[in-house]
Amino acid sequence: MNNSLMPEKRFAIIVAGGRGNRMNNEMPKQFLEIAGRPLLMHTVEAFYKFSPDLSIILVLPEDQIDYWSILCQNHGFNIPVHIQKGGKSRFQSVRNGLKSIDGEGLVAVHDGVRPLVSNELIAASFLIAAMHGSAVAAVRLKESIRIIDKDSTRAVDRARFRVIQTPQTFKVSLLKKAYEIEEDESMTDDASVVERAGHKISLFEGSYFNIKITTPEDLWMAEKLFGYQNKENDY
Amino acid sequence: MNNSLMPEKRFAIIVAGGRGNRMNNEMPKQFLEIAGRPLLMHTVEAFYKFSPDLSIILVLPEDQIDYWSILCQNHGFNIPVHIQKGGKSRFQSVRNGLKSIDGEGLVAVHDGVRPLVSNELIAASFLIAAMHGSAVAAVRLKESIRIIDKDSTRAVDRARFRVIQTPQTFKVSLLKKAYEIEEDESMTDDASVVERAGHKISLFEGSYFNIKITTPEDLWMAEKLFGYQNKENDY
Repeated sequence: MNNSLMPEKRFAIIVAGGRGNRMNNEMPKQFLEIAGRPLLMHTVEAFYKFSPDLSIILVLPEDQIDYWSILCQNHGFNIPVHIQKGGKSRFQSVRNGLKSIDGEGLVAVHDGVRPLVSNELIAASFLIAAMHGSAVAAVRLKESIRIIDKDSTRAVDRARFRVIQTPQTFKVSLLKKAYEIEEDESMTDDASVVERAGHKISLFEGSYFNIKITTPEDLWMAEKLFGYQNKENDY
Repeated sequence: MNNSLMPEKRFAIIVAGGRGNRMNNEMPKQFLEIAGRPLLMHTVEAFYKFSPDLSIILVLPEDQIDYWSILCQNHGFNIPVHIQKGGKSRFQSVRNGLKSIDGEGLVAVHDGVRPLVSNELIAASFLIAAMHGSAVAAVRLKESIRIIDKDSTRAVDRARFRVIQTPQTFKVSLLKKAYEIEEDESMTDDASVVERAGHKISLFEGSYFNIKITTPEDLWMAEKLFGYQNKENDY
């Protein structure tokens, strides 16, 4: 049997490790609400809407798993996800998430606090990862940047830089192999882990709307942008 | 007479060179409306509100000066500004603006399409420039960045970078001297011109709200953020 035209099995690992420390807010970021629901539900729904056949693995801190169940009941949220308990760092949480995956396929790793990810972005990430083994969403810098150099700063050419987002999508075997490496603090995302394991990273065009919610202002902006996207979808 | 405690004369050069090409819109960006008025009026007003004693120099493309007058009449906008015609590049426009300034003092150069600049940011820029000769608004990168390196990319430590905004405020004599240099395309802002002239640049903390409007999405966001700021001011 020739499997070459069989669609690859697709997974999403949604990582929600926030404990609310950066928000000055008791509530972990992923449970803050936009458009009447915890933003993590919007994130999960974005992947479900992309494809109901996608296997979604939701990585949560162990002590938030019960709370998530209650939230789902309260909001009548019943999109099927596999819950996996997180680790002490993003690295460990993704590694735990990968343990839930058997066999080959493609896996998109996505920040739980990026609820505005579009269908097009998810689709592009899987297509490009199928071709190149990796697909990392990235956008250009809109403004000038400077580098801090000892006690002063100097201008650098912004055209040479990209701001990195998620989804970061990979062949499952490639990402699993990469995560066998020993963790260090420079591994701030999956791309840096895969790169450390000796692979080149393929970037693709992300979106300025695909914001990561880390401050109260971000939350406020996300609520507004959410309205904007829905307005666009009405056309 | 000891002038050391005399307040320095303060100027603002507001540079509006947009021709609308990046917006896919006939209207130059600075004339697009937020909250019912061309955004350039909001920018001018922000500086006027900071201090009515500030001398505001508005640099406009020559063929937009009449249109600006008509807009001012239509909107009953009568904040006094000195109009100066712009040049072919931002560099030339700022240099033209500087020709309007006689004597010593402090000058804040600001993008016409950053209407959300706050009173606090303008005040900080003048205070810091008075101490250090320069004050350039900058914010940290919220997300990971990668540098493009030949045919691939690699992670870099985002903590070492700052995103540069305006206002960029300087001692008048220092900025005038710096702008005697020959223009080249790496001089994307005043900081890079002053740096090329051999001076160190002082950064200060900008604001994520102080966005530069270059896309339709930015315009939409600015409208929303404008509402947010006004809500804040009501407290």
